[in-house]
Amino acid sequence: MSNRRVFLKQSALSVGATLIGSSLLRAEDLSSKNSKITINSNDIILFQGDSITDAGRKKDTSTPNDIAAMGRGYAMIAASVLLNKYADKNLQIYNRGISGHKVPQLDDRWQADCLDIKPNILSILIGVNDYWHKRNGKYEGTAKIYGDQYRKLLDKTLTALPQVKLIIGEPFAVKNVKHVDDSWFPEFAEYQKVARDIAKEYKALFIPYQSIFDAAEKRNSGAYWTTDGVHTSLAGANLMAESWLECVK
Amino acid sequence: MSNRRVFLKQSALSVGATLIGSSLLRAEDLSSKNSKITINSNDIILFQGDSITDAGRKKDTSTPNDIAAMGRGYAMIAASVLLNKYADKNLQIYNRGISGHKVPQLDDRWQADCLDIKPNILSILIGVNDYWHKRNGKYEGTAKIYGDQYRKLLDKTLTALPQVKLIIGEPFAVKNVKHVDDSWFPEFAEYQKVARDIAKEYKALFIPYQSIFDAAEKRNSGAYWTTDGVHTSLAGANLMAESWLECVK
Repeated sequence: MSNRRVFLKQSALSVGATLIGSSLLRAEDLSSKNSKITINSNDIILFQGDSITDAGRKKDTSTPNDIAAMGRGYAMIAASVLLNKYADKNLQIYNRGISGHKVPQLDDRWQADCLDIKPNILSILIGVNDYWHKRNGKYEGTAKIYGDQYRKLLDKTLTALPQVKLIIGEPFAVKNVKHVDDSWFPEFAEYQKVARDIAKEYKALFIPYQSIFDAAEKRNSGAYWTTDGVHTSLAGANLMAESWLECVK
Repeated sequence: MSNRRVFLKQSALSVGATLIGSSLLRAEDLSSKNSKITINSNDIILFQGDSITDAGRKKDTSTPNDIAAMGRGYAMIAASVLLNKYADKNLQIYNRGISGHKVPQLDDRWQADCLDIKPNILSILIGVNDYWHKRNGKYEGTAKIYGDQYRKLLDKTLTALPQVKLIIGEPFAVKNVKHVDDSWFPEFAEYQKVARDIAKEYKALFIPYQSIFDAAEKRNSGAYWTTDGVHTSLAGANLMAESWLECVK
């Protein structure tokens, strides 16, 4: 809730944002348009993450911009706007989110699913499973392990792709919807702080999804924006895409 | 290309439209914001049509606003914007497009797939198969039969739902992409004229998709906007959603 959190009322890329107005918190560190990432010709944009990014994408095609390979979530909606708006820029957009993944699973497939793709713009949303799977006894990780692994992944990325521009999404959980209750916090907030700290350290744009969903609950219930506290409804997917698109110009 | 075709540069609902600017033709009969359809609380919005509307939707659920049931096309993208922007309005949005359908197939399922749903806003995009299936010998229809059947369908609709607001999309075909070559025209244009005439007769908003795709070809090739001349790419789905959203406020 610092003064770094900036409300951008009329972004060129806003999706359905006009009436939403002052209730929304947007991507941080966007204190001026100059801090947005500029979309250039021939840019390669990669969405990475877990099920929220995956969103039921078709996985047996590696073609960029493929409608079925983009899933049904925020990545698909954001990609559709980019491909329309920047139709003259020959963009290549990929979604490589995989359901259930934590940072170590990203690391296992990072060569093929990130470095080989050579993105100019890399968007990562990871962390809810790092907490959730520990919570339900399927994983031994902690917030510290999450941070250590995440930093190693980014170090590896920046060694191979020193010019890549990073967008880091805050892992989020919407309370009182199915899987998520009060007991998620404050422990889950430690993971969120790690993601925020990492974004700062690595000069990434940070999308504060938790605040964005919290603010959206003033407009409708948590169950309207997520199906289970973790995964997005159609409204929630658009909410995320809208915030993501404010990172670029 | 009449003066009734109005360019609305900064619609409140524009999706990625800002840079597109003067190259786009938008929904007709929108000579002022007052002629747009107002979204009201508890509105029921129904997308009807063929494969372009269907877009791979999950068909075994009848729940409104369901992300998988909305498909991966313009209806899904438009619905996501509506559900975010009008989160306080308790909208119910349905997609009942089915791949391969012509007007007679809509008629066969109209009671269950339209009248029983009781839409306040009904969007129909139908006609490409009425021509295409005739062209390839699978159907005996003509442009006149298309028009007669379409008018009967709308008469039936207005008898059951006299207050419904109509949006009619122009059937379109993008030349020199896979299925579509010069020989589609001028015959296919007869079907397009029928749809346009019907929109006028029934006081529907008319979305001139053919002009919209023609204009988009100044920004990238037809194969960028459609996968086969008939079905949309991700960019084309966004282009259609953008135009659709300009019909409402």
